[in-house]
Amino acid sequence: MQKKELIYEGKAKKVFATDSPDFLITEFKNSLTAFNAKKRGSFGGKGEINQKITTLIFQRLEASGIKSHFVENISGAPEMLVKKLKMIPLEVVVRNRAAGSFSTRFGIPEGVPFDAPFVEFYYKKDELNDPLMAEEHILALKIASSSQIAMFKALALDINSVLKSLFREMDIILIDFKIELGRDVNGEVILGDEISPDSCRLWDANSGERLDKDRFRRDLGRVQESYELILSRLEKVVKK
Amino acid sequence: MQKKELIYEGKAKKVFATDSPDFLITEFKNSLTAFNAKKRGSFGGKGEINQKITTLIFQRLEASGIKSHFVENISGAPEMLVKKLKMIPLEVVVRNRAAGSFSTRFGIPEGVPFDAPFVEFYYKKDELNDPLMAEEHILALKIASSSQIAMFKALALDINSVLKSLFREMDIILIDFKIELGRDVNGEVILGDEISPDSCRLWDANSGERLDKDRFRRDLGRVQESYELILSRLEKVVKK
Repeated sequence: MQKKELIYEGKAKKVFATDSPDFLITEFKNSLTAFNAKKRGSFGGKGEINQKITTLIFQRLEASGIKSHFVENISGAPEMLVKKLKMIPLEVVVRNRAAGSFSTRFGIPEGVPFDAPFVEFYYKKDELNDPLMAEEHILALKIASSSQIAMFKALALDINSVLKSLFREMDIILIDFKIELGRDVNGEVILGDEISPDSCRLWDANSGERLDKDRFRRDLGRVQESYELILSRLEKVVKK
Repeated sequence: MQKKELIYEGKAKKVFATDSPDFLITEFKNSLTAFNAKKRGSFGGKGEINQKITTLIFQRLEASGIKSHFVENISGAPEMLVKKLKMIPLEVVVRNRAAGSFSTRFGIPEGVPFDAPFVEFYYKKDELNDPLMAEEHILALKIASSSQIAMFKALALDINSVLKSLFREMDIILIDFKIELGRDVNGEVILGDEISPDSCRLWDANSGERLDKDRFRRDLGRVQESYELILSRLEKVVKK
């Protein structure tokens, strides 16, 4: 597959056309951003680490019957051949414990577990700062129907089950994560984007230490080491 | 019923105990606040106007089979004898057309009608700025169960039906409104608080002019005249 023109540049990825209308190439950038790109940083090799982490996670999900846009990695570059999806303009968040915006919004301390995991939706619109959406808003803005929303939730919770046990094997608590969904050429809704320490909250099960983008957001230091640690633990668990 | 000690002072009302544990007296204040009380104002007679408006609306709702905490007005004061409710800590908003925080949050121009009215919930907590809650948040914070939430929505939409036609008779478009619900001594969920131009968006059906608290929020002038206009149109329609 031939890499063609850049069609979109996001905060952490570039997306290129290919010589097939059904496939894209995504390049994982070294940049780190937070607070809707008001805070910016980067470290060398970050793109490659996130590409590898996403690959291993998408492979584990695939083995559990959950489809993603992942096709294969491009050798020698932090690039991934993916199926072209028509993206649903929602950020789908699954929360197992209170943290981040949930804690700020509702005054619940970080780390408090919920009785059951639950799904939140945010409108993917940078200029509006990705606002929280209740189901009624998704319907009012005609982004999806009730039954589609129910399906997004079920899919997100299935992904959560697989990820939670994967991270548990790595002695990591999956606090929350964000995914993006899209429709493939057959109209099936599958997982797109990435799953990495950029999009998950991952706490060491023993020390409680954060091993994710909160280290960057909150200036906790050892950002790169934490991403590397996630990759090395993941390689041990997925490849064995 | 004897008025006893002040037990709570809110932004637009004071609440007093009575000599019965099952009843309270609410006093409608002349103050106007917006943006979580960052903006403050008042006009003479405002308490009385809102008391009268709320009374007429609660009477119309009662006539349509929708119960509220209203018992009777105290003569000669902007005060109302009400049933004591155990309040549910939610602000329940019904929207017929885009306006206010909905328009800001989702980038939809004010006045755009929705295919169907819908209900939003906000966590009633001043120190958190009354954040929007999806159903999942209400469940996670154990404020209400799924079936209770469904009941709150149904009740709010029933109230919307009555109010929409009431205001239509007054040549006014009901854009949106906020209510608060609570449990009476029998555990039944009924309407509390008030319904007034403080808690509704009301647009003149012919001129499109705003006749509600947005005149104060947005410094549009003629605040008092608009509240008086609502009352006089309401008196014509409800008392005839």
